[in-house]
Amino acid sequence: MNKLSANSWEHRDMDNVFHGFTDLGTLKSNGPVVLTHGEGIHVFDVHGKSYMDANSGLWNNVAGFNHQGLIDTICTQARRFPGYHAFFGRIADTTVALSEKLVEVSPFAEGKVYYTNSGSEANDTMVKMLWMLHRRNGQPQRRKIITRLNAYHGVTAVSASMTGKAYNAEFGLPLPGFLHADCPHYWRFGLEGESELEFSQRLARNLEELIIKEGPDTIAGMFAEPVMGAGGVIPPSEGYFEAIRPILRKYDIPFIADEVICGFGRTGEMWGSGKYNMEPDAIIASKCITAGYFPMGAIILGKDLSDELARVSEQAEEFPHGFTAGGNPLGSAIALKALEVLEEEGLLENVNRVSPRFMERLHKLGEHKYAGEARGVGLMGAVELVADKSTKEALPGDLQISERIANKALEKGLICRPLGAAIVLGPPFIVTTEQIDEMFDILEETMSDVFADVGL
Amino acid sequence: MNKLSANSWEHRDMDNVFHGFTDLGTLKSNGPVVLTHGEGIHVFDVHGKSYMDANSGLWNNVAGFNHQGLIDTICTQARRFPGYHAFFGRIADTTVALSEKLVEVSPFAEGKVYYTNSGSEANDTMVKMLWMLHRRNGQPQRRKIITRLNAYHGVTAVSASMTGKAYNAEFGLPLPGFLHADCPHYWRFGLEGESELEFSQRLARNLEELIIKEGPDTIAGMFAEPVMGAGGVIPPSEGYFEAIRPILRKYDIPFIADEVICGFGRTGEMWGSGKYNMEPDAIIASKCITAGYFPMGAIILGKDLSDELARVSEQAEEFPHGFTAGGNPLGSAIALKALEVLEEEGLLENVNRVSPRFMERLHKLGEHKYAGEARGVGLMGAVELVADKSTKEALPGDLQISERIANKALEKGLICRPLGAAIVLGPPFIVTTEQIDEMFDILEETMSDVFADVGL
Repeated sequence: MNKLSANSWEHRDMDNVFHGFTDLGTLKSNGPVVLTHGEGIHVFDVHGKSYMDANSGLWNNVAGFNHQGLIDTICTQARRFPGYHAFFGRIADTTVALSEKLVEVSPFAEGKVYYTNSGSEANDTMVKMLWMLHRRNGQPQRRKIITRLNAYHGVTAVSASMTGKAYNAEFGLPLPGFLHADCPHYWRFGLEGESELEFSQRLARNLEELIIKEGPDTIAGMFAEPVMGAGGVIPPSEGYFEAIRPILRKYDIPFIADEVICGFGRTGEMWGSGKYNMEPDAIIASKCITAGYFPMGAIILGKDLSDELARVSEQAEEFPHGFTAGGNPLGSAIALKALEVLEEEGLLENVNRVSPRFMERLHKLGEHKYAGEARGVGLMGAVELVADKSTKEALPGDLQISERIANKALEKGLICRPLGAAIVLGPPFIVTTEQIDEMFDILEETMSDVFADVGL
Repeated sequence: MNKLSANSWEHRDMDNVFHGFTDLGTLKSNGPVVLTHGEGIHVFDVHGKSYMDANSGLWNNVAGFNHQGLIDTICTQARRFPGYHAFFGRIADTTVALSEKLVEVSPFAEGKVYYTNSGSEANDTMVKMLWMLHRRNGQPQRRKIITRLNAYHGVTAVSASMTGKAYNAEFGLPLPGFLHADCPHYWRFGLEGESELEFSQRLARNLEELIIKEGPDTIAGMFAEPVMGAGGVIPPSEGYFEAIRPILRKYDIPFIADEVICGFGRTGEMWGSGKYNMEPDAIIASKCITAGYFPMGAIILGKDLSDELARVSEQAEEFPHGFTAGGNPLGSAIALKALEVLEEEGLLENVNRVSPRFMERLHKLGEHKYAGEARGVGLMGAVELVADKSTKEALPGDLQISERIANKALEKGLICRPLGAAIVLGPPFIVTTEQIDEMFDILEETMSDVFADVGL
């Protein structure tokens, strides 16, 4: 970093950009990576160095970084109608067409779509929808939101309150009334001698106890990711959703699937909630909805919830909520094209074609001396590093082992993601088996280097 | 609406879209307006009907709906690098260049930029920044946020809590700790015999009393729009910001200018905060930042606040916050171009060239029998309708007079915005004096028609 001139891209960045979710020690010593373009699953920095991105950007650039069809759609729609809002009963034709398509591919026979600019905004909006609904239904006290420890639902103050990560204490979050149930991670939280099904049933009992303790008529809704993403790629334990779903029904608690990461194919099915029998009342979508080519979030409301919300909104004259760029004509055209690419260009098919190789290599990495668990589904996976495989004891925190691995991998031209003590992978849906092999080859070599460096 | 076939755009919309900020009675009777494209300051619906948009979309489409330079920039950058994130110290070159430019045009000699997808997210993020800052500085109790009645700061649960509008009661908002000071609207709230300056001084005294009552060390920050936008275009009363600024300094309360509407020229200057001597510690920008061609929000932190936030974030290892599409390469390229269009194609100049005609016609409309006040600045204006000019008594609410006028204007091909009892106008910065005349001619005719219709 220090070798670079004051008018280098890196210095200009450091002088003018406030970075989020960035290890500031690493940034100070290594400087930022300033990127210029992408090709397929690779991105390139200002010095011409290329990086294979094993994380699809942030799970979202699933068609790669220069998909011609998506780019052509951007240009065509930009020439036609680049920007408008969807307030006051006005809306772009592309947004109408997208809404129809989203309901069609959703698990709901009928429903309605509400647009935001991000998953954070969509979760935040869904909470407001539930608050308004219960309030108009004579239950204004029904405000508490249940999520799970290790869940990730976004970064607005409310969606961060739903997120079950320790760093939110920095902001004095969660806000009151945001409750975190157990994390369905059997490997980490299963008791000695407890089967995976028994574990799931215990978590369901705990959930019911939480609901009873808090008062069922104080709970506004429960949100869950099918597979926890930023929590470290945690697929639900066996029978987990089947165990908790009847409890939520019993207490009439709306159940929302946060499909921001899983939605549109990441697990090998269109919806993670379908794969894991969640039977949600609404779906939160974002990220892959535009293949990472436009900021967009969407709430897909199933018919029951949609009808109820329409009824109370009519009583109030309107649903008094909206984002300036929500339901944007350009974003909608891109999302329509992204769905076409996913379904008709075989991207979803490819996930299922290459996933076995991805899982095979992931599990092979799981045989590493310091790999506690290798877990995943579809094209999302994680290897969790530990000091001791049998006791699952953590490596010393000051080793920053996953951060070290990710930094070393970056040097070698591979982007992977450190998450706690895990290394997370989520390659684009266009990835080939050869690229999967290359990815894991580099990662294996990197891990050998790093563990040797730290004397392990 | 009922005459249209089931596969009409309108029916497809009604079947699949959940509309926000939309009068549902009007939507049911008239149906949505489904739009296909725009030309200059006009948009066109699926039936070929054209509408002059006197509101620039939602204040943001200031370069019109088909600006060739912006469209070309979209295509060029989409071909180059359409999408990436700005986490983990990675960032696109266009985002670095934009950050440098934003600091350059900001009121701050130095500073740093943080990106979101909307003004809502930017305000919500700024609150989290203040919470983290005070917490790390040993003042975790410093959480209350002061805004003003009639303020609009967004729709996430926190930015809606900052918004001082009655409809947020539908959601059980504001959350605790969100305080609303007086609205600096002299015409409405000035006392008999009180001068405008005296009014401003009274509001400043009230603000200090509020701060003392709540406890100065419980206040995290104050946010204010230079001119209240969605509150009904309310420029500050004379001397208002000059009166409150020293009080905020006295109690060491950070002051944030919400420039989502005013920023980038709406008032005739680059920043509304400059025009009204706000001297903010940070600026919230959105809307015109991309001329409405991409969802983007930005926080421009002045040096002091930026340094403090960097310091506490380093203590915490990172600023644990970020939006997937925040600091997007495509959005950044568009924003850079939008700033060029504003400064070098003479858009900002045009605001000042045509504003006198805009204000002249606005004040002429203010002479209408039922116009209580005509107010505005630059290219933003409102006419507030009343039953009695001298007493300022409101017209009966069930008349829905502003909604009626806006609906009738829509029939005549003019889009204007009903806000409470006011009609709000904020034309694109490319508007000509001839178009301003046409706009007001239609509005005058519409008002005559509507007042005749309702027998007034």
